[in-house]
Amino acid sequence: MTSTTAADTRIDGDRLWADLMELAAIGAYDDEATGLVGVNRQSLTDADRAGRELLISWMEELDLEVTIDEMGTIFGRLEGEEPELAPVLIGSHIDTVATAGAFDGCLGVLGGLAVLRSFAEAGLRPRRSIAVAAWTEEEGVRFGTDMLGSAVAAGRLSLDHAYSLNDAAGLRLGDELERIGFKGQRPVRLAPPHAYLECHIEQGPVLAQEDRPIGIVTGVQSISWQKVTLHGRAAHAGTTPTELRIDAGLAAAQIIVEVRRMVDSGDYGRLRATVGSIETSPGLPSVVPDRAEITVDLRNPVDEDMARAEADLAEFLEHLPDTQPGLRVETAQMARTKAVPFAEDVQDVLETAAKERGYDSMRLMSGAGHDAQEIAAIAPAAMVFVRGQYQGISHNPREYSTPEDCLAGVEVLASAVKELSA
Amino acid sequence: MTSTTAADTRIDGDRLWADLMELAAIGAYDDEATGLVGVNRQSLTDADRAGRELLISWMEELDLEVTIDEMGTIFGRLEGEEPELAPVLIGSHIDTVATAGAFDGCLGVLGGLAVLRSFAEAGLRPRRSIAVAAWTEEEGVRFGTDMLGSAVAAGRLSLDHAYSLNDAAGLRLGDELERIGFKGQRPVRLAPPHAYLECHIEQGPVLAQEDRPIGIVTGVQSISWQKVTLHGRAAHAGTTPTELRIDAGLAAAQIIVEVRRMVDSGDYGRLRATVGSIETSPGLPSVVPDRAEITVDLRNPVDEDMARAEADLAEFLEHLPDTQPGLRVETAQMARTKAVPFAEDVQDVLETAAKERGYDSMRLMSGAGHDAQEIAAIAPAAMVFVRGQYQGISHNPREYSTPEDCLAGVEVLASAVKELSA
Repeated sequence: MTSTTAADTRIDGDRLWADLMELAAIGAYDDEATGLVGVNRQSLTDADRAGRELLISWMEELDLEVTIDEMGTIFGRLEGEEPELAPVLIGSHIDTVATAGAFDGCLGVLGGLAVLRSFAEAGLRPRRSIAVAAWTEEEGVRFGTDMLGSAVAAGRLSLDHAYSLNDAAGLRLGDELERIGFKGQRPVRLAPPHAYLECHIEQGPVLAQEDRPIGIVTGVQSISWQKVTLHGRAAHAGTTPTELRIDAGLAAAQIIVEVRRMVDSGDYGRLRATVGSIETSPGLPSVVPDRAEITVDLRNPVDEDMARAEADLAEFLEHLPDTQPGLRVETAQMARTKAVPFAEDVQDVLETAAKERGYDSMRLMSGAGHDAQEIAAIAPAAMVFVRGQYQGISHNPREYSTPEDCLAGVEVLASAVKELSA
Repeated sequence: MTSTTAADTRIDGDRLWADLMELAAIGAYDDEATGLVGVNRQSLTDADRAGRELLISWMEELDLEVTIDEMGTIFGRLEGEEPELAPVLIGSHIDTVATAGAFDGCLGVLGGLAVLRSFAEAGLRPRRSIAVAAWTEEEGVRFGTDMLGSAVAAGRLSLDHAYSLNDAAGLRLGDELERIGFKGQRPVRLAPPHAYLECHIEQGPVLAQEDRPIGIVTGVQSISWQKVTLHGRAAHAGTTPTELRIDAGLAAAQIIVEVRRMVDSGDYGRLRATVGSIETSPGLPSVVPDRAEITVDLRNPVDEDMARAEADLAEFLEHLPDTQPGLRVETAQMARTKAVPFAEDVQDVLETAAKERGYDSMRLMSGAGHDAQEIAAIAPAAMVFVRGQYQGISHNPREYSTPEDCLAGVEVLASAVKELSA
């Protein structure tokens, strides 16, 4: 491989920031909750079409070969010296949730574009082709399935299935793709690239806490979501002796305390557990709840640790009626994904790139899902995380990474792409 | 005192049951939740007026002296041989909640009437006068304050205050009293009776569990209601390390588990604790709750035990942020009443009466509030509880006590009244 110097791929931070802000103006709205301007550019809406058109105009400025696949994913390709070699693929998404900021997804796509711009400005022609992809419907908020475009590209979901998904208004994804003019011709099944890279905001507090601008992502955690419903018996708070109660709310509380104990025990590796929603019925101060419903969100970077946590939690739930006979516990799996470890050698390239560029980095796993985890099924993949402000808040107009940190992430991406495409 | 035999005061169980059913037909409605016919006869409504008129017609049948006080409470009096002596007062209420059964309150009023009927039929004239009272707005569901008529009669609340209370539609209690023609002339402040007796359904499962038809009520528990609000920090379930979380839902669960531990410890006497309502925000599976709100309902028959429980819970709440720094705990007292012990000698009279009548009885405290606790402030008072079916469900069309158990309660009441009025 050729040696890489930062000067070869100078990223124009001002241009990157200006592009981010220009794209964020499409779908902008006044957010009442924060008093800020947010972004609502959900997939395959008119706003998304406008964002796509702006992206394509920038790709064309750079003379990239633009193709649209059958899922509407946009590819902009810089041909390499040996075009028959598998390309290096950079990707992320420009669709957003309903209350988004400017960075989630967009930094990865516009950062990829900035990398190709740096090649053009330096007069560099890579050995391998380099492409930037903007995946369709990563957020999943409109059609209900996240990482949809990349999942179809990698072959996990079928095109027909994706086309048949409906939004809340009953509009079909296939029809909406056609309506906005983005049902492309390029076959959706992706030929495995040489490597896949994605630069993304962290959406978490770790880099800020550790005071480092850059994270090298080791993989995506396994996710297990279940709904646990406790069926007890309504009873008067004043007249019902404790021993005659079947308190569904108490059982819910015992589960919440138990999952935290499991996390703190260290017996399940890097388990994270969250009970985000608790609902009780009838919800009156003087009535013992006859019903409680909670969601249990478990995350774990190691599948075996996750399986053990799930099994032990299931056993705990099974024994919950021991202390309150008559209690009935019902569980329903809402979602379950396996852990996706990213390619070690691609992580190493990113780490070297960060060092070369002079940025403090650390390895960390991703708590959220990303297109990279889909493409990891067919190619060596890894991600660069960029530090977020305000505890890494995301999916919120307060989402913010500094221009310096955005530049840092894209510079690391650029060096890694140069290395991998050489 | 004269010796009492059951034959002196034979209660007509069929008539009692028929009266209960006839009164329950006023305000009857088809209850969707249960598929049963329920009763909705809230205080000072047209239905309540109709119920009052029926009650008065029955009082007049017995030649009782009927008076209405300034709060609309109806008194029916059988004059004793020595009318200058303080009377024995029997009371309860005929107003209902919106989804009531036929028994709550009504059994006490119609049972009192049955007692006076038994005196009439036996040609007995008591030494002391005996009166039956139907207190206004015991339930508190329409004007927001329960035991209202008896509280004003006993001097705890002022008449002006009671008149000024509004219902949800903004109608003033004083105006509604006048509208239904029940703003009476009798001065509301009650001259202390010789004794006050109230027969009421248990509204709890204890008598059924213990297989006894009759309970002798030792008093009314102290009640402490507080709302506890936990302020944490919203955070992404996947990306936020456990040690950086301030989980308001977890804190709520810890409180729920702790209050149950306090109950089970036995350190607080006969403490009962209920968390009936739990709400979290934003309530999403993958977001650590930034806010949780729970109600804590504590009951205790002994004021000192209650005070210690409250103090220890307050200390627990104070230390809750120790394990989650940054957590903010806010408490607001919603209600607080002291324990009301009933008169030992009146309890003894009731117990003797139950034994004479051949009914198994047991002493138990009341978990719910009753008019007797207000009158206990000015006179020796006690209550007879009647076993309820279906775990003693109440405030529900399923509320049910058998004709035999209703008769048993009223027979005990009759013997006690005979004893106390002699």
